[in-house]
Amino acid sequence: MIDDRGIHAFVPYPDAPVAHAAGGPLAGLSFAAKDLFDVAGYPTGGGSPIVLALSGIKTRTAPTVQKLLDAGARFVGKTVTDELAFSMNGQNAHFGAPRNGAAPDRISGGSSSGSASAVSNGLCHVALGTDTGGSVRAPASHCALVGLRPTHGRVSLEGALDLAPSFDTCGWFTRDVATFARVADVLLGADAVPAPSRLLWPADLWAQLAPAADASARAAADRVQAVLGEARLVTVVLDSFEAMYWHFRHLQGREAWLTDGPLIERHAPPLGPGVAERFAFSRGVTDAQVIAANAFRERFTAHLEALLGADGVLLLPTMPDIAPLKAEPESALEDYRNRAIRLLCVAGLAGLPQLSLPLAGRDGAPMGLSLLGPRGSDRALVAMAERLAAAGVGRPAGL
Amino acid sequence: MIDDRGIHAFVPYPDAPVAHAAGGPLAGLSFAAKDLFDVAGYPTGGGSPIVLALSGIKTRTAPTVQKLLDAGARFVGKTVTDELAFSMNGQNAHFGAPRNGAAPDRISGGSSSGSASAVSNGLCHVALGTDTGGSVRAPASHCALVGLRPTHGRVSLEGALDLAPSFDTCGWFTRDVATFARVADVLLGADAVPAPSRLLWPADLWAQLAPAADASARAAADRVQAVLGEARLVTVVLDSFEAMYWHFRHLQGREAWLTDGPLIERHAPPLGPGVAERFAFSRGVTDAQVIAANAFRERFTAHLEALLGADGVLLLPTMPDIAPLKAEPESALEDYRNRAIRLLCVAGLAGLPQLSLPLAGRDGAPMGLSLLGPRGSDRALVAMAERLAAAGVGRPAGL
Repeated sequence: MIDDRGIHAFVPYPDAPVAHAAGGPLAGLSFAAKDLFDVAGYPTGGGSPIVLALSGIKTRTAPTVQKLLDAGARFVGKTVTDELAFSMNGQNAHFGAPRNGAAPDRISGGSSSGSASAVSNGLCHVALGTDTGGSVRAPASHCALVGLRPTHGRVSLEGALDLAPSFDTCGWFTRDVATFARVADVLLGADAVPAPSRLLWPADLWAQLAPAADASARAAADRVQAVLGEARLVTVVLDSFEAMYWHFRHLQGREAWLTDGPLIERHAPPLGPGVAERFAFSRGVTDAQVIAANAFRERFTAHLEALLGADGVLLLPTMPDIAPLKAEPESALEDYRNRAIRLLCVAGLAGLPQLSLPLAGRDGAPMGLSLLGPRGSDRALVAMAERLAAAGVGRPAGL
Repeated sequence: MIDDRGIHAFVPYPDAPVAHAAGGPLAGLSFAAKDLFDVAGYPTGGGSPIVLALSGIKTRTAPTVQKLLDAGARFVGKTVTDELAFSMNGQNAHFGAPRNGAAPDRISGGSSSGSASAVSNGLCHVALGTDTGGSVRAPASHCALVGLRPTHGRVSLEGALDLAPSFDTCGWFTRDVATFARVADVLLGADAVPAPSRLLWPADLWAQLAPAADASARAAADRVQAVLGEARLVTVVLDSFEAMYWHFRHLQGREAWLTDGPLIERHAPPLGPGVAERFAFSRGVTDAQVIAANAFRERFTAHLEALLGADGVLLLPTMPDIAPLKAEPESALEDYRNRAIRLLCVAGLAGLPQLSLPLAGRDGAPMGLSLLGPRGSDRALVAMAERLAAAGVGRPAGL
């Protein structure tokens, strides 16, 4: 068991033997997996004491975890997830709040909180997470990490607990782009689509930034454009942010209730702050809301695909601001979350890949800038990040 | 797995095979064990997600559990305990609040909440609990069960998680005295001391009753005295209730911190309401307080032993009132708990056996009356309960 005293990134399961290839493209790298992924010899807790109790010891390893092992990476443990992965705060009422290695007084973000914490605190090189509504991108932004939400379906989630399957994706974190690219070669392979090259500037998404974060994010965007070319102005949002937000929440809520409603109704687990309210909301989503949201999703996806074409990449802030302070009340965190969803749901609704890079920040805390590309362009987005890194575009001084 | 839908008495671990003798004195009885006891094939969670994570699957069965299996009882599962057994409410922030089978709108009491719930809801015949500061006696009183806190050390706690070892005891619950006596023969065997016979009336303890509960408890006491003889007036408390209360809390707190402090400091588990505050209190107990409390404990034990002599049995209310409503705020529950400790700490400080019987109640909810006897008189107390049952002294009508 990794000694993560004071960090609490890992669920303290007893170590079980997990074999990895002696050599391979990831030899020398250590990795962790969010406690949604089955790893033979371990339970899968999903951030829920009742799920953990029900789990028993798994006898199979999720294929994506196995890919990393087969490529020579060494498994070091399972990381804390927000309860049932249905939160963006990184504060689990049962398993704790993993420390943000880049800004320890601030929340790590979630729900892949322990994975982001483990990597940002230097406890391992790589950590697997999942991203349904932002659960990789949010903690990547908060913890100064490279993090990808892949094209929906591109990286297998077999052997992992679901939240909302039509949104769920398997992503990962590293501290640097070079390591990220090594893992990308293993988990993504080559893209089957041409590499996009043309930057787009979604002015309406940029308008969601907190005023305090504006200067740093725009300065970072300038550095990106200096390497990748000037971005052309586009508008992403159809109708309104408000409509998009609710459509996303209705779809995510309905699917989350289909996934976890039976567990919640059978076992009545005491759910932590925010999580209980979100499941109560999810239970109440109506068929009419789902039908309307699905129609919107189809229209929005077509719009975004047309906007990107084969070669467009949105350059956008990952989150509306740096991470909130840990001491903020639940209501303030909920408000921040609701603002963040307005940015995060774009890739989620359309199932498109989004890569967050730690290029901005303020007041000593980091913030991510994202590249959002066409379906299947995941590896090309990582290649863009490699070009940026090669040109010296990285974390700003003092962050 | 027992279907305890709507009751939530059991931790929903996957069933593991647990063999029991084909025949024996407990043949035909089913039993459960509080999730502090190791049972081979199961983890031991202690009501704490972190303890559960750390547990792994146990390979040995606690000797007291094994005794029941060897006597022919059938194991049906592990029951919810209050977090780290350090609560008296039966409301675990991580595993839920088991239903009180006798008064479903009221708390079950704890920390042996799931065991009392399982038995009071008819899910099994017998359930093992532990009693440090009242964790068998309180839920027995709240759930209309027969429950014993044995003489300290008489029933083995090997293979069970500690709370405060000099107070910890292993007790059990049944719905009726006859079943209780069958288990007593297995877990206690015969007493090595003469059976006490003389009832004593601790007027100062009776004065701790809530006024609303007074009439029913005294009527029950009259019924007991009609069978077992009239009780003679005695005074139990030395100095003051306040002093006794704090001495108990200092000793229990120090031992609880020695037991769980390292876990809490290493893993920083998020502790539920009340539990967090009690461990914070425990951490702050000073050596001077412990020295004073130990001196008091010695003096109090000698006083109580002299008062009982070889043949005295205190007749007292188990709790100050019926169980509080589930909807009461944590502050009201804490107040009730602090009043209850003034009654419960008597047996705890002196290490003497106390048997609670469901003989009183008000407003449709039950309340226990207790027999507290000399060290080692446990089986004789059960025999007294058998005499009461034979004489028709049982639960009052309407409860």
